Amino acid sequence: MATVERLKELVEGVTARAGYSSSIGTRVLEVRRGEVTMALDRRSDLQQVHGQFHGGVIAGLADHAAGAAVTTAFPEGKFAVTVDLHVNFLAPALGDSLIARAKALRVGGTIGVSHVDVYSVCAGKEEICAVITATMRAVDFPGTEPARHFKI
Amino acid sequence: MATVERLKELVEGVTARAGYSSSIGTRVLEVRRGEVTMALDRRSDLQQVHGQFHGGVIAGLADHAAGAAVTTAFPEGKFAVTVDLHVNFLAPALGDSLIARAKALRVGGTIGVSHVDVYSVCAGKEEICAVITATMRAVDFPGTEPARHFKI
Amino acid sequence: MATVERLKELVEGVTARAGYSSSIGTRVLEVRRGEVTMALDRRSDLQQVHGQFHGGVIAGLADHAAGAAVTTAFPEGKFAVTVDLHVNFLAPALGDSLIARAKALRVGGTIGVSHVDVYSVCAGKEEICAVITATMRAVDFPGTEPARHFKI
Amino acid sequence: MATVERLKELVEGVTARAGYSSSIGTRVLEVRRGEVTMALDRRSDLQQVHGQFHGGVIAGLADHAAGAAVTTAFPEGKFAVTVDLHVNFLAPALGDSLIARAKALRVGGTIGVSHVDVYSVCAGKEEICAVITATMRAVDFPGTEPARHFKI
Repeated sequence: MATVERLKELVEGVTARAGYSSSIGTRVLEVRRGEVTMALDRRSDLQQVHGQFHGGVIAGLADHAAGAAVTTAFPEGKFAVTVDLHVNFLAPALGDSLIARAKALRVGGTIGVSHVDVYSVCAGKEEICAVITATMRAVDFPGTEPARHFKI
Repeated sequence: MATVERLKELVEGVTARAGYSSSIGTRVLEVRRGEVTMALDRRSDLQQVHGQFHGGVIAGLADHAAGAAVTTAFPEGKFAVTVDLHVNFLAPALGDSLIARAKALRVGGTIGVSHVDVYSVCAGKEEICAVITATMRAVDFPGTEPARHFKI
Repeated sequence: MATVERLKELVEGVTARAGYSSSIGTRVLEVRRGEVTMALDRRSDLQQVHGQFHGGVIAGLADHAAGAAVTTAFPEGKFAVTVDLHVNFLAPALGDSLIARAKALRVGGTIGVSHVDVYSVCAGKEEICAVITATMRAVDFPGTEPARHFKI
Repeated sequence: MATVERLKELVEGVTARAGYSSSIGTRVLEVRRGEVTMALDRRSDLQQVHGQFHGGVIAGLADHAAGAAVTTAFPEGKFAVTVDLHVNFLAPALGDSLIARAKALRVGGTIGVSHVDVYSVCAGKEEICAVITATMRAVDFPGTEPARHFKI
């Protein structure tokens, strides 16, 4: 069974490889089996028209964190892809950064469910801005070639 | 009542202003009252680890299109912000571009609901990759200053 | 491959066996592979406090119809159980009956997704009152003994 | 501002009046401002085909508890009706009873969001079987006549 260090390395590797996650500046803060915390900082290209973090960025960060939380709880060699994602936006995200805390609620051999709380952080103070649940399914861990053929 | 030309101008204006929407390359293809079609093209910074469009990009494009569809159906001067967003991912989005077709299902004075179909387009052929529903609420149309204080 | 008659028999059999579905008066109107229509009639024990059909009844009918739509599209011998269910309530359901039209959007070997439109029917006129998406997973078709051990 | 006793009386009154909630045997266990716990006991007419509580019953109980949690946190005279409901089913509900613990996450003047954990209770042991989020909107508190005209 993978150690916590190996799990963190795995999550950081995927986060760095994935074009979108790295391009929006995702940082991996903490990784335990079934629990992952990620963050990203405010940039003008991540905002919507009111100056808040865009809902797509909140959804994308949560999705990525949820996938990591479930992947670390799946059998080794399996990787979580999202089947569905539900986001409740609770407050405008006007902070300097976002923190997503993802926790796997239930993980089986082929399906996992994760809950994510996303906080807007302003001057060090966290305010919850969204809650997310994601249903994930297991596929083989991505190799160096894109797996172009899987379907649900 | 606003003409279709005025509605399209309004949606294009918001899309161009919003940092995230313009930074991911959102193009406004069609605008009618309650119906909006948007698209964006593949770029390496929008992909996840399997080479598909990232779920956050799909969610973000759908959210933006849903907001536009509901905004054009709200009473004039009102702007749709997302209360919640539900995405079902149906197939990997491996195409050259994404098209989101958003339609307002029901719009009242303060709440609107939109359905969005997102297609992955490969060599001109559309394949549905996600279906989304978004619940929106009306706030005052954004002026030049960010509206920092609204809450649900 | 099962004929349409066999599929309808299968869906009617499950609907009659299931305590909840039969107790709320579920009627099977139409069954095709991946498409199922069900209905139920107004009764005082199915209402909420404003005299509408209760949200739980709408959700339950939609869930049952979605499961049937996906089950008829799964490989033979497989049965759909719900992983998650998302309901958008669009209008109060004040009609004499409810009709749920479920359609499988995508069905693989282990997971299926269904969309359901639920209509409130008043004096023969249908008005949409809710849209639902359900994610389902395949388990073995239920025998005469309850399958007490599956987990996601 | 209403006392806890008055809030409990209000929730019990609505639960007793509502045909569906009382017909499935809903019991109100605890009421605080923004937090409500409800339960119901196993009956054959609440089961699905594997002998579990039907998803519609879980959704209905959660919906009712969520509505109560948000109603007790809304301004006095306002009543929560469901805009949308999202249920993740985590494990089969094979217990003797269900307990739903609903908590309002955020409540404004017109919209409230609630999270609900539903547990299957078997021989006194609680196991989580579903997590739910519900988005609610405020309408006037129901009088003795059904309010037939509100729309979103």
